[in-house]
Amino acid sequence: MTVTVAIDCMGGDHGPVVTVPASIAFVRRHADVNVVLVGIEEGIARFLDECGVSESEKARILVRHTPEIVAMDESPALALRNKKSSSMRVAIDLVKKNEADACLSSGNSGALMAISRFVLRMLPGIDRPAICAVLPTMKGVVYTLDLGANVDCTPEHLFQFGIMGSSLVSAIEHKESPTVGILNIGEEEIKGNDLVKRASELLKNSDLNFIGNVEGDGLYRGDADVVVCDGFVGNVALKTSEGIAQMLNVFMREEFSRNPLTRLAALIAMPVLNNFKRRVDPRRYNGASLLGLKGIVFKSHGSADAFSFGSALDRVAETVRGGVLSRIARHVSFQQERLQENS
Amino acid sequence: MTVTVAIDCMGGDHGPVVTVPASIAFVRRHADVNVVLVGIEEGIARFLDECGVSESEKARILVRHTPEIVAMDESPALALRNKKSSSMRVAIDLVKKNEADACLSSGNSGALMAISRFVLRMLPGIDRPAICAVLPTMKGVVYTLDLGANVDCTPEHLFQFGIMGSSLVSAIEHKESPTVGILNIGEEEIKGNDLVKRASELLKNSDLNFIGNVEGDGLYRGDADVVVCDGFVGNVALKTSEGIAQMLNVFMREEFSRNPLTRLAALIAMPVLNNFKRRVDPRRYNGASLLGLKGIVFKSHGSADAFSFGSALDRVAETVRGGVLSRIARHVSFQQERLQENS
Repeated sequence: MTVTVAIDCMGGDHGPVVTVPASIAFVRRHADVNVVLVGIEEGIARFLDECGVSESEKARILVRHTPEIVAMDESPALALRNKKSSSMRVAIDLVKKNEADACLSSGNSGALMAISRFVLRMLPGIDRPAICAVLPTMKGVVYTLDLGANVDCTPEHLFQFGIMGSSLVSAIEHKESPTVGILNIGEEEIKGNDLVKRASELLKNSDLNFIGNVEGDGLYRGDADVVVCDGFVGNVALKTSEGIAQMLNVFMREEFSRNPLTRLAALIAMPVLNNFKRRVDPRRYNGASLLGLKGIVFKSHGSADAFSFGSALDRVAETVRGGVLSRIARHVSFQQERLQENS
Repeated sequence: MTVTVAIDCMGGDHGPVVTVPASIAFVRRHADVNVVLVGIEEGIARFLDECGVSESEKARILVRHTPEIVAMDESPALALRNKKSSSMRVAIDLVKKNEADACLSSGNSGALMAISRFVLRMLPGIDRPAICAVLPTMKGVVYTLDLGANVDCTPEHLFQFGIMGSSLVSAIEHKESPTVGILNIGEEEIKGNDLVKRASELLKNSDLNFIGNVEGDGLYRGDADVVVCDGFVGNVALKTSEGIAQMLNVFMREEFSRNPLTRLAALIAMPVLNNFKRRVDPRRYNGASLLGLKGIVFKSHGSADAFSFGSALDRVAETVRGGVLSRIARHVSFQQERLQENS
């Protein structure tokens, strides 16, 4: 099986200077991978030349010229209406036309979501797309969704997020029955809000490996493989985590650069600190999946460098290989059969 | 002005072994402070003796014997009904009877909330009590509420949280017009959920120094002095922060203890790492306020040691000195006058 990924080369803060070399490295890392580089041809060609691509590699690298770019601050509605020849739109169109198995963009998230939803449409049985990202935990990783696509959710939405997250973990992490938890608060008798209680009931009565409540700290303790929550809560959890990690990093740096003695200590501790940083390097966790669509779409962080963009590409390839869409479909039809039996 | 604090000496994981020495140290730190130590007399007396309290100090330390204790896992409803002679209940009663200006407990949070609400009642114009804690930021501190008392909030509740948080910061941090933000997500055009949008309108049209949206990472960047959110979101934000901080701490320790060389590096970096740890030491931020009641009630972390319990006591004293209750009342009556003018 060959995996073909359409790459929006113009998206993100850096554009082709990052996306093209990362795509070439991706092709070199995986013998079963082809890429379609979508964007302004001149820009792409320049960085292709710099990478010194061989003839055999060239056969696996298609370039698709597009004259337009979706700006990072452009309104998603306008981008959807007006930018039909943008690198982002064409990359998604390639997935729609089955010319690519998946696409990756580090461009405007709102536009990516709006265009993907319009072009690809939703999977049967899934009402809303969700953004699912992977985070490091004490035991490995956790896939969390939704991270901001849906601010007001119903219990059914959270349940569907469970199906999608579980399918994604099966595909990428090769776990047949990943544990699924629901983000909740552990205060006294009345735990959680109405949404969480009703969603828990649905999850409990499904074919998912539902383990119940996961508290905020349980997320990083690795209590579950998948954690579902509404997009508002998920986005707050993600951003507060980023915020405190940044703060701790700044404080640590300040302490190590306080005087000549502490700077000497920093020098000696450097290899250890570097190992630590490598372990929690957010670049290793880049690549959020837009789940629920009839096609595989991934979003890279806008500020991603080539290493980070490459991590996202690896995740995209593994998602295709693992057959995430058919996994979601299987869970959905299982659920529908059960509902019919009970009615 | 003398500040009298009623202290539930039996609460928390450690009881009098922590609470009594911390209370004595508190009295020694502040010339204007009296304490009422509430709990089982024998236990309290033993640790008082160990502290070698002087005659003049004794005049400022009252002991109030209570035969009962609210257990950490006791149902709040049962504790409220059955434990009328518990150290927690009597400490709150002392506030009600004006024999103390405030009380502090590290006991069962749910019971503390239920009993405080029943005994003290709500302030006029405030519908729901909220839990407000202080967190470190890159610029100083931020007071965040609600952290779990209310899982389903109305816009009016969030608005009242703004009033209470702002009043608390004025009292403790001596800022006359603290900035107030609302925790929100910054995704595309449609920012935030319905609750946040409507609460923002109320906050905008008030006498508070409302600065608008604060995202999760803005919390720790120090974007505002006060950040309001519903109790579900607040609790998730707090717990995820704790979770990632713990994880980073564990990873750091693992890296520094990997082999003899890294352990040597740890030894050399130790003073710097200790300075770093001191800066973000959660014990310095202990003491959450139960706001909205006709009385000042604080909750200490259950696992608090004497240093941590002392930080909470200092915060309690400053809240009393700063006159938080009259500050809340002034904001509420300003708001009511404005509503009358407009109607």
